[in-house]
Amino acid sequence: MRRLSNQLIATRREPPADASAVSHQLLARAGMLQQAGAGLFTVGPLLLRTLQRLEAIIREEHDALGCQELRFTHLQPREPWEASGRWQTLTEDDPIMLRTRTRSGAELGLGPTHEEQAALFAADGVSSHRQLPMVLYQIATKFRDEPRPRSGLLRTKEFTMKDAYSYDADEASAAQTYERLAEAYAAIFARVGLDTLRADADVGAMGGTMSAEFLAPAGIGEDFLASSDAGSYRANTEVARAALVAPPAPEQRPMSTVETPGATTMETLQPFVPDVPPERMVKTLLYGITTAEGGQEVIAALCRGDRSIDESKLAKATGAVEVAMADAAMIRSATHADPGYAGPVGLAEDVRVVGDHAIAEVQGFVCGGNATDTHHRDVWWGRDVALPELADLDRVADGDPAPDGGTLSLTRAVEVGHVFLLGTRYSEALGLSATGPDGVERPVWMGSYGIGIERLAAAVVEQHHDDKGIVWPTAVAPHTAVVVSVRAGDPDQDGLAERITGQLLDADVDAVWDDRDARPGVKFADAELIGFPWRITAGREAAGGRVELTWRATGETEVVDADYAVSRVAEDARRHRVRLNPR
Amino acid sequence: MRRLSNQLIATRREPPADASAVSHQLLARAGMLQQAGAGLFTVGPLLLRTLQRLEAIIREEHDALGCQELRFTHLQPREPWEASGRWQTLTEDDPIMLRTRTRSGAELGLGPTHEEQAALFAADGVSSHRQLPMVLYQIATKFRDEPRPRSGLLRTKEFTMKDAYSYDADEASAAQTYERLAEAYAAIFARVGLDTLRADADVGAMGGTMSAEFLAPAGIGEDFLASSDAGSYRANTEVARAALVAPPAPEQRPMSTVETPGATTMETLQPFVPDVPPERMVKTLLYGITTAEGGQEVIAALCRGDRSIDESKLAKATGAVEVAMADAAMIRSATHADPGYAGPVGLAEDVRVVGDHAIAEVQGFVCGGNATDTHHRDVWWGRDVALPELADLDRVADGDPAPDGGTLSLTRAVEVGHVFLLGTRYSEALGLSATGPDGVERPVWMGSYGIGIERLAAAVVEQHHDDKGIVWPTAVAPHTAVVVSVRAGDPDQDGLAERITGQLLDADVDAVWDDRDARPGVKFADAELIGFPWRITAGREAAGGRVELTWRATGETEVVDADYAVSRVAEDARRHRVRLNPR
Repeated sequence: MRRLSNQLIATRREPPADASAVSHQLLARAGMLQQAGAGLFTVGPLLLRTLQRLEAIIREEHDALGCQELRFTHLQPREPWEASGRWQTLTEDDPIMLRTRTRSGAELGLGPTHEEQAALFAADGVSSHRQLPMVLYQIATKFRDEPRPRSGLLRTKEFTMKDAYSYDADEASAAQTYERLAEAYAAIFARVGLDTLRADADVGAMGGTMSAEFLAPAGIGEDFLASSDAGSYRANTEVARAALVAPPAPEQRPMSTVETPGATTMETLQPFVPDVPPERMVKTLLYGITTAEGGQEVIAALCRGDRSIDESKLAKATGAVEVAMADAAMIRSATHADPGYAGPVGLAEDVRVVGDHAIAEVQGFVCGGNATDTHHRDVWWGRDVALPELADLDRVADGDPAPDGGTLSLTRAVEVGHVFLLGTRYSEALGLSATGPDGVERPVWMGSYGIGIERLAAAVVEQHHDDKGIVWPTAVAPHTAVVVSVRAGDPDQDGLAERITGQLLDADVDAVWDDRDARPGVKFADAELIGFPWRITAGREAAGGRVELTWRATGETEVVDADYAVSRVAEDARRHRVRLNPR
Repeated sequence: MRRLSNQLIATRREPPADASAVSHQLLARAGMLQQAGAGLFTVGPLLLRTLQRLEAIIREEHDALGCQELRFTHLQPREPWEASGRWQTLTEDDPIMLRTRTRSGAELGLGPTHEEQAALFAADGVSSHRQLPMVLYQIATKFRDEPRPRSGLLRTKEFTMKDAYSYDADEASAAQTYERLAEAYAAIFARVGLDTLRADADVGAMGGTMSAEFLAPAGIGEDFLASSDAGSYRANTEVARAALVAPPAPEQRPMSTVETPGATTMETLQPFVPDVPPERMVKTLLYGITTAEGGQEVIAALCRGDRSIDESKLAKATGAVEVAMADAAMIRSATHADPGYAGPVGLAEDVRVVGDHAIAEVQGFVCGGNATDTHHRDVWWGRDVALPELADLDRVADGDPAPDGGTLSLTRAVEVGHVFLLGTRYSEALGLSATGPDGVERPVWMGSYGIGIERLAAAVVEQHHDDKGIVWPTAVAPHTAVVVSVRAGDPDQDGLAERITGQLLDADVDAVWDDRDARPGVKFADAELIGFPWRITAGREAAGGRVELTWRATGETEVVDADYAVSRVAEDARRHRVRLNPR
């Protein structure tokens, strides 16, 4: 018999003072996690049951594709990271890799990811295309030295991750495997009750040729999803592009200078050049950036007058680890003018100029004159000034035209899954190759696929809660049903509650009897806060075998025969059965 | 359909050059593990299946006792370790705790164990004796900076551990919980097919009032089990004591000096004192020890003439991290004599003298004279020289009298489990208390219980193998049965093998079809090396529905109907069914 009186239930009215995310607040109030340090959380018994269900669903979907589970080490020698070139990246450029030193002096990384180990492991056993495609995966801890751990389980220093690695003989096959895994991801998120959207994403430090994220819309999310109402375009705003129409070029006229006193913004500038639409202006913004090596650089970032600069795109384009608007002194030194009059013509020599791709299609434009109260007009790339280095800098916004013809809208979202088609970067670095049907040995194409388990649970809570607490979907609830005897010690109620719990357990339903010696209000509030999908209450009508059956999601309650309650709950459980036991 | 052709099977003829343990040799040859660094092994898919079965058995036995699983963090802040006094112990005295530093400068330990976290977690939710007894456990990675990782999976820098923590209101209840957990351990080891013995053990750095180990006899073992043929006494030689009978004291005579030229051993000394039996001699051995702080000290260790010194006991008694026999120069400086004539009377002042408990009962003894070619006789403690500091230093040996009246024998063994009754050390340090029935708040009694999962698997291999490979017990085999089609591509054989595999899977038997395009000899050798308990071979008689059924443990083979083979294997699997899925 499984009883709540035997479990450590530590619910509380108030969330921790620093809990901003709803999922953090509710999981903490439900006693399901406990903070062990900055970005470190002990997973309590109830939350672990949910994580194990998530892991089981993930295993089931991977095993169905023939993926093989294994277990890499968390401690990783430095050499393979040196071979792939990532030791520097992950310990200096973006130092998320924690390290430790053994008593013999060896430096080991605490795996933030396992591409190097995945390449090495396969290099030992794979030699022929006939062994491919192959997918290996593990469910294990990842360690990341997050600069700002926050939002409870959404961003922590260690977390459980399912990471998979695919191996294919060529690009076409690799793309197919990548697509099969991405489809499995969609199936996993659907099974756990999470609303997600697949979006194009940045490959980042991982490298590779293709990447997609699965984003779960949620108010606390750190990512923004740009999606088109036409339905076929979705991308993280880190990589999203609006479909900008190039403005028609005007007649060629020589570049001239316009007096524009006080016109430091697009709005105040417009009256001085009433014939030039904003999309035929080039906006120049000055930034001070910090490079990975700690150096300082001044950047002039250019975009169309009707657009703006996405600073995370700018950071990526320039290799900056920090980006800040330039201060007035920096602007004066770069432009010899007050702020507001910067432009590409005649900037100081030491300023690096980077433009968004869209400016290349703008000709005969207006831009700042690098002199106070002055702009230039009828400026032509190539004729009056060289086209600068181009990159994706454009910030997409709600209402922008989408590449698929629709209109983009932006949604805050939590990234719950990320897939990468890596190409041969890691296999070349670490000696993983296979002979093709023609007998020629070639580097193996790899892919990499990750789901953060605790974050997945938190995202489910972000999407499934109400003012009373968590509303777990049946598939991932810590227990499917709680059976409450209203008055502990009442023989009719206790007898019925115990019998029902036993029947549910026998029917393979994960049920628990709340037999605690506590007031009914406490038991009901705990059940709602923890969020068990079903509550069966043995109360006044227990002697007659009648119970209240309550569905947490809606609060709907019916008074029914105990047997009906058991079969109703068992039916729901059956629909969401997880095969935790791979045979 | 589960097929070996889809799996990464990388068997090899030769073990790694440095593999001394049979389990390391066989697991490596079977392609079940791959070395990732010193003391670091990637667990391949087949071995992971075995580990998951071990974990499931362990979960089942813990859950049956009402234990609750949770997940502590691996990274642990320094403060709780400081509170318990173990930061110093585990980072300096015996520095097995690896550490890392975050970018914000915080120093974190990589959990080698979790008593501090276990006390903290419970402190948050436990307040009353009515919530106790309670047992929490996790199955997670432990990190240990082993000075000499070796023997494959038997001693590594990271490994999976089931660690449980018990909480009781008082000592009597704590002792009961400790005993229940110890019984569960015995049940677990029996289920996984491991022959183990429970033995008294050293509490070590853990502290506490009681400790026992589960030792699995194996030739490679680093521990020695002393067990009595009378049956009731078993102890690790680290703490084992022989039942020594004190020699009768002779008549009091004044101490005198005997010329003993060249008598530097017991054998050569005997003729000079023919009336004194060896048990009435006191042997003095000089050691140079290194303390935790790095200091050097000379120790004179005393034991009876018929006994010897156990250096690990000496290290423990003196707090030494390293113990070495003193060299001739050290001996001359301590005794002013050539080596072989040391004794307790008149040693240099700066020598620390420690005697085994048994010497206290020896009077009128012979000992070295601290002068070359000289011994003393008729030496009495208290009269001629002060009784030194006493400790357990005696080395037990095969044939020693046991405390229970029997005779001790020594067996090499692998420690696979360790249980500790901790007392209130951690709960006092970390503020974990509960009110008793009398309303008075008292520190909670804790216990700590560990099983190393990879080591458990290796111990099973140490006990279950033959010259062809591993012989997995059914309960923990990576697959229960392999179905071999002798000639890949033969439609009768393939058809039958596929049908049988499907039937086994439907009967919930973990079976796999070896459909690889390889010679039969290769398939048979792989099956034997990997050690699947059953092999069903579809060969020449496949058309008639007949197969060979082979039991790996004995090699016994019968030709039987396919249906009989399926039911025979299913029956064995049923007896060893593991409920991997806790409902």
